[in-house]
Amino acid sequence: MEKVNEEEIKRRIKRFQEYLEKNGISLAIILQNVDRYYFSGTIQLSTLLIPFSGDPVLIVHKGFERVKEESPLKEIIRARQTEVGNFIRGYLRERSRVGLEFDVIPANVYLRYKEMLKDFEIVDISEFIRKTRMIKSEYEITQIKKAVSIVDEGFKEVQKILRPGISELEVDAFLGYISRKKGHMGMMRMREWNQEMHYVHVLSGETGSVISFLNSPHGGKGITPAMAQGAGLKKIKEGEPIEIDYGACVNGYIADESRTFVIGDLPDRLKKAHECSLEIHRFFSEIAKPGIYCNEIYERCLEIAKEWGLEEYFMGYGEGKAKFVGHGIGLEIDEYPVITSRFKERLQEGMVIAFEPKFVFPKEGVVGLEDVYVIKKDGPERITKTEQKIIRIRKS
Amino acid sequence: MEKVNEEEIKRRIKRFQEYLEKNGISLAIILQNVDRYYFSGTIQLSTLLIPFSGDPVLIVHKGFERVKEESPLKEIIRARQTEVGNFIRGYLRERSRVGLEFDVIPANVYLRYKEMLKDFEIVDISEFIRKTRMIKSEYEITQIKKAVSIVDEGFKEVQKILRPGISELEVDAFLGYISRKKGHMGMMRMREWNQEMHYVHVLSGETGSVISFLNSPHGGKGITPAMAQGAGLKKIKEGEPIEIDYGACVNGYIADESRTFVIGDLPDRLKKAHECSLEIHRFFSEIAKPGIYCNEIYERCLEIAKEWGLEEYFMGYGEGKAKFVGHGIGLEIDEYPVITSRFKERLQEGMVIAFEPKFVFPKEGVVGLEDVYVIKKDGPERITKTEQKIIRIRKS
Repeated sequence: MEKVNEEEIKRRIKRFQEYLEKNGISLAIILQNVDRYYFSGTIQLSTLLIPFSGDPVLIVHKGFERVKEESPLKEIIRARQTEVGNFIRGYLRERSRVGLEFDVIPANVYLRYKEMLKDFEIVDISEFIRKTRMIKSEYEITQIKKAVSIVDEGFKEVQKILRPGISELEVDAFLGYISRKKGHMGMMRMREWNQEMHYVHVLSGETGSVISFLNSPHGGKGITPAMAQGAGLKKIKEGEPIEIDYGACVNGYIADESRTFVIGDLPDRLKKAHECSLEIHRFFSEIAKPGIYCNEIYERCLEIAKEWGLEEYFMGYGEGKAKFVGHGIGLEIDEYPVITSRFKERLQEGMVIAFEPKFVFPKEGVVGLEDVYVIKKDGPERITKTEQKIIRIRKS
Repeated sequence: MEKVNEEEIKRRIKRFQEYLEKNGISLAIILQNVDRYYFSGTIQLSTLLIPFSGDPVLIVHKGFERVKEESPLKEIIRARQTEVGNFIRGYLRERSRVGLEFDVIPANVYLRYKEMLKDFEIVDISEFIRKTRMIKSEYEITQIKKAVSIVDEGFKEVQKILRPGISELEVDAFLGYISRKKGHMGMMRMREWNQEMHYVHVLSGETGSVISFLNSPHGGKGITPAMAQGAGLKKIKEGEPIEIDYGACVNGYIADESRTFVIGDLPDRLKKAHECSLEIHRFFSEIAKPGIYCNEIYERCLEIAKEWGLEEYFMGYGEGKAKFVGHGIGLEIDEYPVITSRFKERLQEGMVIAFEPKFVFPKEGVVGLEDVYVIKKDGPERITKTEQKIIRIRKS
């Protein structure tokens, strides 16, 4: 069982405390499991207090011994949830500002804290957390690489079972099976509320063009409107694009990659679109150096799609169009940076991005490559090992 | 693809509107995917407005055609999220009360609505939703039965692979594989914030006694502190309890069952505890008729555990003790009713309960049966088909 080490956690806390100090926030109260894991190494039932300077305190409500084993933090104490207020007030003076994760804590939790801290100003710290988490350490990149290798392996293995007549669902079950056996932790976390991500999308032909609630260029039909995403019961046919968007999570860290498979060959129009996806990847490999603006990358990718006459299908069509071409990955699948026109931040060393220029054609399906890149000093390193091409399966 | 029919939705809305009317709430704004699915048949990006009387309106923000296909509601319109406020104000007069789901909507969504509706009182409707959803229709029970049959089948199939030396993770991967192939929708939803449930727990021997953040008698080690539940890398041995808590979801509806397996035979103390679990099930089958209080059932179950000298281990030990013995299941795994001392409501016809008297022994593991029951007029119907016994696997 791999734990997060002390130095790693210390560096994270320190970077986050700079945001707190700069914004005059005395104390951050970290409640969400994933954020708490990031800053403490444990998701056990506890409340994490991070003052703008000095050591954080982890107040454990259940599983004290387990927390002591999992977390390298020095200040770990045991207390009930109802006693948390007393600890918090110890950090505060008149007019202190206290931070909470407004994007993930439910309204009733917010209201409980608001009542408890009615003499203080409560502010949203979710952007600071997301920005701290946006830059990955060597340790984090190592975890993502492990997850990437599970996915790359899956792309090889799945070629053995793809054949006309197999259902999307069977392919999905197979990919879930092999990743889990290899150590995929079994779920994939997404931060945005009301979004949820199954870790495999197997979308063949027209199902790839079904518009869904997901903030993604493709959603799929799924097997029920209650899930409304991913593989459905459709059987795979020759000559249609089979887009497999496949993820795995190791020690919390996500890999997210896609490949277009086909039994036989694709129509020329789709092959051309796939070639354009590859061209955009080439462009990204050249341009994605620290210092360039994320919105600029997005706009120039869109420009390439236009030059190829494919703008209409780029990242979806009609109301299903996703307005980004890449996203950060880490403990959640929708991390910063977002490669989109509204994200006006520069790329930095240590960002990890799932870059996914895709084209969605009504009734015909999705094509495109999604690879994982680590932004380094001299440019991006593609850590996906699967070759960048359409994966053709022989007919017989 | 099975859709929810119009009559079903109408009855749900009507029952919910009674709560709104009784509590003087003019309008409920339903935002969470699962709640919206329950009242509209779709989880596509939309906002559902349910007035205290009259027809609900579903305002679709993306995927209009898909929503029209999935939802039997009559009033389905297309508008941006930023335009929702105008529709809402159409329902309100001076001093109207508006309801939101305080237990699930994030603080920033709450604050956005609070600002938008600053002239009105905003109240929590989560209890009314949970109480409406607590009583299942024939349609819902049919879905749960389908999920139950996937799980029962899994309990048979898994006997073919259980052998000394196989890891918990391999067993988990296998069970995930076969349920997904049979139509498990691929994830299991839990309402409580910061809780999340993997759909299989395979816990052998001591891993069954590891205390976790989960609101459950057992959590397990998992393969990483980032997940901290379910199967780990431990290899299964002869003579130790292998508790498999297994779920599947069909059309959103959950089955949740557990069985104790053993290769060879269990120590007498654990066999006795399993016998006590069975005794508590027998008691439940007799007593769980409409009208009896949930807290009374819980207290009498606890009494039986005491009589058997097993109170200390009932539903966990020490700080890991769960304070319930059963819970409602439906679209989420933690539905009402809860069979616990704090839930002072009477059983009603149409409730569906996962009843799980279990015993957890430090270092030794978990034993106990979890079955699904439907509360009927004359008493509970056990819809789990797997026999109520320890499932013994031959040694060789």
